Amino acid sequence: MDAAEFRCRGKEMVDYIADYLEKIEEQSVYPDVEPGYLHHLIPTEAPLEPEGFGEIMQDVEKVIMPGITHWHSPRFFAYFPTGSSYPALLADMLCSGIGCIGFSWAASPACTELETVMLDWLGKMLQLPECFLAGTHGRGGGVIQSTASEATLVSLLAARCKAVRWVQAEDATRSEADILSKLVAYTSEQAHSSVERAALIGAVLMRKVPTDDNYAVREETLKKMVEEDKAAGLIPFYFCATLGTTPSCAFDCIPELGPLCNRENIWMHIDAAYAGSAFICPEFRPLLNGVEYADSFNFNPHKWLLINFDCSAMWVKERADIIGAFKMEPLYLKHENQESGLVTDYRHWQIPLGRRFRSLKMWFVFRMYGIKGMQAHIRKQVGLAKEFESLVRADKRFEICAEVVLGLVCFRLKGSNELNQNLLKKITKSREIHLVPCQLSGLFVLRFAICARKTESRHIQQAWRHITQLAFELLQEQPH
Amino acid sequence: MDAAEFRCRGKEMVDYIADYLEKIEEQSVYPDVEPGYLHHLIPTEAPLEPEGFGEIMQDVEKVIMPGITHWHSPRFFAYFPTGSSYPALLADMLCSGIGCIGFSWAASPACTELETVMLDWLGKMLQLPECFLAGTHGRGGGVIQSTASEATLVSLLAARCKAVRWVQAEDATRSEADILSKLVAYTSEQAHSSVERAALIGAVLMRKVPTDDNYAVREETLKKMVEEDKAAGLIPFYFCATLGTTPSCAFDCIPELGPLCNRENIWMHIDAAYAGSAFICPEFRPLLNGVEYADSFNFNPHKWLLINFDCSAMWVKERADIIGAFKMEPLYLKHENQESGLVTDYRHWQIPLGRRFRSLKMWFVFRMYGIKGMQAHIRKQVGLAKEFESLVRADKRFEICAEVVLGLVCFRLKGSNELNQNLLKKITKSREIHLVPCQLSGLFVLRFAICARKTESRHIQQAWRHITQLAFELLQEQPH
Repeated sequence: MDAAEFRCRGKEMVDYIADYLEKIEEQSVYPDVEPGYLHHLIPTEAPLEPEGFGEIMQDVEKVIMPGITHWHSPRFFAYFPTGSSYPALLADMLCSGIGCIGFSWAASPACTELETVMLDWLGKMLQLPECFLAGTHGRGGGVIQSTASEATLVSLLAARCKAVRWVQAEDATRSEADILSKLVAYTSEQAHSSVERAALIGAVLMRKVPTDDNYAVREETLKKMVEEDKAAGLIPFYFCATLGTTPSCAFDCIPELGPLCNRENIWMHIDAAYAGSAFICPEFRPLLNGVEYADSFNFNPHKWLLINFDCSAMWVKERADIIGAFKMEPLYLKHENQESGLVTDYRHWQIPLGRRFRSLKMWFVFRMYGIKGMQAHIRKQVGLAKEFESLVRADKRFEICAEVVLGLVCFRLKGSNELNQNLLKKITKSREIHLVPCQLSGLFVLRFAICARKTESRHIQQAWRHITQLAFELLQEQPH
Repeated sequence: MDAAEFRCRGKEMVDYIADYLEKIEEQSVYPDVEPGYLHHLIPTEAPLEPEGFGEIMQDVEKVIMPGITHWHSPRFFAYFPTGSSYPALLADMLCSGIGCIGFSWAASPACTELETVMLDWLGKMLQLPECFLAGTHGRGGGVIQSTASEATLVSLLAARCKAVRWVQAEDATRSEADILSKLVAYTSEQAHSSVERAALIGAVLMRKVPTDDNYAVREETLKKMVEEDKAAGLIPFYFCATLGTTPSCAFDCIPELGPLCNRENIWMHIDAAYAGSAFICPEFRPLLNGVEYADSFNFNPHKWLLINFDCSAMWVKERADIIGAFKMEPLYLKHENQESGLVTDYRHWQIPLGRRFRSLKMWFVFRMYGIKGMQAHIRKQVGLAKEFESLVRADKRFEICAEVVLGLVCFRLKGSNELNQNLLKKITKSREIHLVPCQLSGLFVLRFAICARKTESRHIQQAWRHITQLAFELLQEQPH
């Protein structure tokens, strides 16, 4: 394919994407295929000779589309949202077209520098404390990670490295192996599984902290665990707080947990993967109070800030900490002065070496929406969640299972877990809307998350009618 | 921006990308900017109100393009290639447009299933042993990782987990902490820094294995180290072999190293990040002989197989090993039977949770080039490297520093390291072509890698004329 054909095919693809997104509502949100369906539809080997674009696009319709769960359908209410917007799609095209690999400043200066400035822009939108910004000579700064899982892992590794250093500074006779075997990390029992996995990867112990009635970690509980562990000879070194947990969008009490962590020399990382986007609205910013105590903070603009996956924003107070986690030789310290403000080799901030020019997506979206446009998006979606909450509350057969703070509503039919499992089975089978469950205090709960950019009030009303209709059928079927 | 404007702007972007790639040769390959240049060109905060697409595209020209190192310029010979082709760009657009997040089969069945089948297609192109393929009921299979660094890390974590299990199976009294502190991994002293970093992350000892005169690891050397380490009470558990090292594209002798690793219960991972693409040509496939002894194998189609970053292909013989590294609870084993052939939850195979629909890029490229088209691309680029090698060999002032096997030529001026450093400085400053150096046997060496898809013989000839002209000037300046 030469440039001339690309011009033609590329424009067809633009129309294909626009058509797909414009008509997405017409499709079943959840696909009707069995495991292995695709295997039967395509050859078992790559072709020897080239095939034409037309044939492939026919197969996209025949092979791919029937197997897609449509995350951007306004009838998709599962998981959490994944971002999508036209400005982000345009930026992603440009990113692919330029195709540079920005692992160091020199590998494409624009790629590194725009990222640093975009993370400062975003940090200012969130009113992050100055110490998290790169500015021109800052010791902190932001970086785009692929996912919140990676941000958690990177912060845990930085904390691990720092802990080994300070323990050895206090007692030079302790071996690294001995220290590693005594390190203990903490996170909420409600935290995402990726936090526990980060500890597995980092080969450190992780303890789950019980939560209060609002599914939030409180100071008292963590303090008790830390004291017990210290008494047992362990070394508390890391706490991953969650703002907006996956099951119920609960918020750990960081204004009280932060000072505890600071006193105890515990690295506090904040995972606000979903909720973080909301903090650009002044009315939701108080949920981030206490971030000033954190060592690192992360959220996913690729979830709720209209930016296509992947774009997970992470900030650290001390960039030297994060770089130190990947390079432990003293020799390396020679370079550390270079790592300040705008001069950055992002390969030292992340697990992979290569990286795409992802900050273009931020630049396009921030400018084409403006802060006001992004705030309007968040507010609209929170409003839709409140609308759904009201519908649930008005129906005495149902109950709300957790406070609705942002765009997630946790609800269930009053009654057994089995009843609610059956309701979800009916919902999934209908393929009209798509939800996933969670477990709260031993109860099987349905999560209704406002996801697609184009979800409107009518979709909420339709979804509720559909759910209540299925619930009615289910309750009719129940033995009295 | 609504769908109608996206149709219009998207088509403008297609033309912008086509223009950029068609005229890329006219630009200096390396940018003429100082650190911090971009900071002065854009505001310090995001705009409150939306801006238009036109303004942003003007800034792309003014702010971004001057700071780009043009990786797809036919005058770019630095690092290793990063893939780009029109079919891959089209597929990436579709991937962004669909915007699903394929962390589990259910999250978009097509995303998971196409990946499994594409990795089988590619595995067959490489003539990988059957045990690495998923088929419909295989115990092995392939996965797309973001980068080779992640593939190395994932394989090391899988090996670590497996080693802990077998050591404890032999002696149940040994603690995990004790075992971890005794584990030792190996890799070539020529291996990429990401291998050492994987060991840092995994908190295990890694020893660098000295290489022979061809910069290859040999059985004898590794065997001696393993025996020494075992005698010292350590537990050898992992060897990362490299096929096509970054400095000189050297090949570890896996046909002799593999049996050693198998005998010693050492997980052998093969990192063929760059060279792997060449193995689709029968004449280069013998370089992969010995893969049958490996536990895992990885290379980057996003380097040399015309696929845009990111797309790093990894295969394992036993998928249970890799999944086990991230979930150690016995409870988990209940799900393992589901993990076979086409039914896969790829989130258990990787560090991140989320994942793009990257297999679309493989599907489009494999079909639109056909195997023959991809082979032609590899052969052409190897031919260009041979052409450059001949030019160097014909000039008595220069020497070739390592055997030219694929698309990389390591060369230098006969003389001091300082002389060659000065030559590289002149080359970089000229911005006509772009190279990076390496160190081989203490010598400062220039690496000339054939990178861009559109590099032709004339670019090789021009580059050589340019290099010899600068060398001539340099040698004139030298004191006699």
